[in-house]
Amino acid sequence: MTTFNKNFSDDEYRRRIAKTRTAMDAAGLEAIVVCDPSNMSWLTGYDGWSFYVYQGVVLTQSGDPVWWGRAMDAVGAGRTVFMDGADHIRGYDDTYVQNPEKHPMSDLAGLLTELGLSKARIGVELDNYYYSAKAHMTLSDELPEARFADATGLVNWQRAVKSPTEIEYMRRAARIVEVMHERVLELAEPGLRKNDLIAEIYATAIRGAEGHWGDYPAIVPMAPSGLDATAPHLTWDDRPMQAGEATFFEIAGAHRRYQCPQSRTLFLGDVPQKYRDAESAVLDAIDAGLEQAKPGNQAQDIANAFNATLNKAGFEKDSRCGYAIGISYPPDWGERTISFRRGDTTVLEPGMTFHFMPALWLDDGGLEITEPILITEASHECLCNTPRELWVKR
Amino acid sequence: MTTFNKNFSDDEYRRRIAKTRTAMDAAGLEAIVVCDPSNMSWLTGYDGWSFYVYQGVVLTQSGDPVWWGRAMDAVGAGRTVFMDGADHIRGYDDTYVQNPEKHPMSDLAGLLTELGLSKARIGVELDNYYYSAKAHMTLSDELPEARFADATGLVNWQRAVKSPTEIEYMRRAARIVEVMHERVLELAEPGLRKNDLIAEIYATAIRGAEGHWGDYPAIVPMAPSGLDATAPHLTWDDRPMQAGEATFFEIAGAHRRYQCPQSRTLFLGDVPQKYRDAESAVLDAIDAGLEQAKPGNQAQDIANAFNATLNKAGFEKDSRCGYAIGISYPPDWGERTISFRRGDTTVLEPGMTFHFMPALWLDDGGLEITEPILITEASHECLCNTPRELWVKR
Repeated sequence: MTTFNKNFSDDEYRRRIAKTRTAMDAAGLEAIVVCDPSNMSWLTGYDGWSFYVYQGVVLTQSGDPVWWGRAMDAVGAGRTVFMDGADHIRGYDDTYVQNPEKHPMSDLAGLLTELGLSKARIGVELDNYYYSAKAHMTLSDELPEARFADATGLVNWQRAVKSPTEIEYMRRAARIVEVMHERVLELAEPGLRKNDLIAEIYATAIRGAEGHWGDYPAIVPMAPSGLDATAPHLTWDDRPMQAGEATFFEIAGAHRRYQCPQSRTLFLGDVPQKYRDAESAVLDAIDAGLEQAKPGNQAQDIANAFNATLNKAGFEKDSRCGYAIGISYPPDWGERTISFRRGDTTVLEPGMTFHFMPALWLDDGGLEITEPILITEASHECLCNTPRELWVKR
Repeated sequence: MTTFNKNFSDDEYRRRIAKTRTAMDAAGLEAIVVCDPSNMSWLTGYDGWSFYVYQGVVLTQSGDPVWWGRAMDAVGAGRTVFMDGADHIRGYDDTYVQNPEKHPMSDLAGLLTELGLSKARIGVELDNYYYSAKAHMTLSDELPEARFADATGLVNWQRAVKSPTEIEYMRRAARIVEVMHERVLELAEPGLRKNDLIAEIYATAIRGAEGHWGDYPAIVPMAPSGLDATAPHLTWDDRPMQAGEATFFEIAGAHRRYQCPQSRTLFLGDVPQKYRDAESAVLDAIDAGLEQAKPGNQAQDIANAFNATLNKAGFEKDSRCGYAIGISYPPDWGERTISFRRGDTTVLEPGMTFHFMPALWLDDGGLEITEPILITEASHECLCNTPRELWVKR
């Protein structure tokens, strides 16, 4: 039997597990149950679009982690996780799937009991898409003697500093988002149906770049024009691009689940002065923010420098201007840990990666010029070489 | 200000709301808070990739529903929902976003109090991706006098029978998945990198068909080959297609968020007899299942007929063989209500739509030949005309 190409060495998984165990120990946890697909993948290598049913990874203070999920997905686990042996892959039967009569967490309770954890202090990700209110109620009802603690973000925080291999994958994703933007510039013109443009952007993402294949971005390409671009998260339809409108392209390249988002804005036709003013303000504010992007500084230093410069130019942004990035699954390409905003005192370290995302939504359109960055020993590095400016096609 | 193209008439939204209120009344609920993006969209028209942060729709027994979400997304709500007026769109400030110090559900509690619901009996979707354990804990802590009840699936069940416009959108999605399969047959050959094929499938999906634009499918195209196809949910990489291998294509067309999934399997080279045997068993079993697909029968009748025929031919399938489909957002394109499996006694009605999904995963590959269907007054209709057989290219 051929083995699936693993993305990382067993050693790397074991280092991640050791790091996570230290954090578990500090939190007084004998075990964690991780349902976030990004955390599952980071700890074990598991990769599949099966997160629409309940699944998780159980990690204790000894031995290899146990993958738990739907029986049909245990096969995919066998082809992707680093652990050997059926003991570390456990499937539940299909009658548990989307059936109001029984809940998969009852099956997980059985597994935790079998692992000797029915009275343990167990960390669960209370604030995660893939651990619902009902999941937690069921699991706690079934294990009345266990003590549950909130372990939201516990694994996510271990992911903040990337390994050399992870950085290599993010660089490949950076090459991919660069060619996606090049394709936008090549094709966009008045009259082009937006969905036809998105089709090309998506195809470019998946073909990849420099011989490295593209994985699916954790968020679909977003490219609203005109008034739709006053809102950040509208997806496309078939209305054609028009002269006199700005369109922002909030898109990401992805490689082996590592995400590199980057946004640019394209104006078709003659640019009104207010867009030039906004561009100039944002570019200055990005420079000011980037100057603070170095080890030892705090996450909020970047936001504060960015906002001070932006405000001086007469613009305001009341949302965070960046967040940690890395491995991710839908619905979010961020790591949900560090944010660039006032009050986030996380100290920056070499190997951390962020999407510096200083988007402005104006009253008649949007301006997004953003940079994925890596904190280096000396200061930082922009992962992409995409020209940093408001793009214009006449 | 131009208004966003709405997908349905206001009347249709009001009919949906009236239907939902009847169900709320039967369940003794004064209000529901709906966080499932499909339910939010079905009730109000809201459409945006913003479900990675907390958001919801509040519906009481009178007046229009209230959209609640992140302040920056309130703009997108204004451009997509049918309700007028700022009273029906409420945003929370950005410091609530992914911040362990404060939870958006505290803001929602304030809104519910303002709406006079602090002591009401409120239905929440306890078993949903977008209503986490922490969300429920926060909301119940903040509203100690409210009585919360599980309303998981309450709105989903109202969606089961489709309106004529919804059926029209699903037919358009059906045309799209047909052309996606045609493109597969055209391009697939030994040596083709899988990601290059997926790029073409995806682009075809988004370009659309017969002049109707393609929306993003709620699940990415899955097309595993050989041993990877023994598992149902592995996504692609760049390994080239090979002669002697089967590849299944589990893909969906989508139009205005309505999903039409359909799977086919392609064998490159000479087909081993076991695949022919499996094909013949599945085709007979599909016929047997479809014979039961008519109003008045139960969902389980289809599964029982399918399984009986399949077993007679010496094959077994221990997972459900179908589920309800319609409007959907990631991570699932099903409606999470009716399943084709033993014990599901739901009575079929005209206007219901399903993915009859009798996939077989064998020890050395997979065989998926599936049909999206519509229950009609007389019996049923297959939504797609894709040739129903194991495809072979030599």
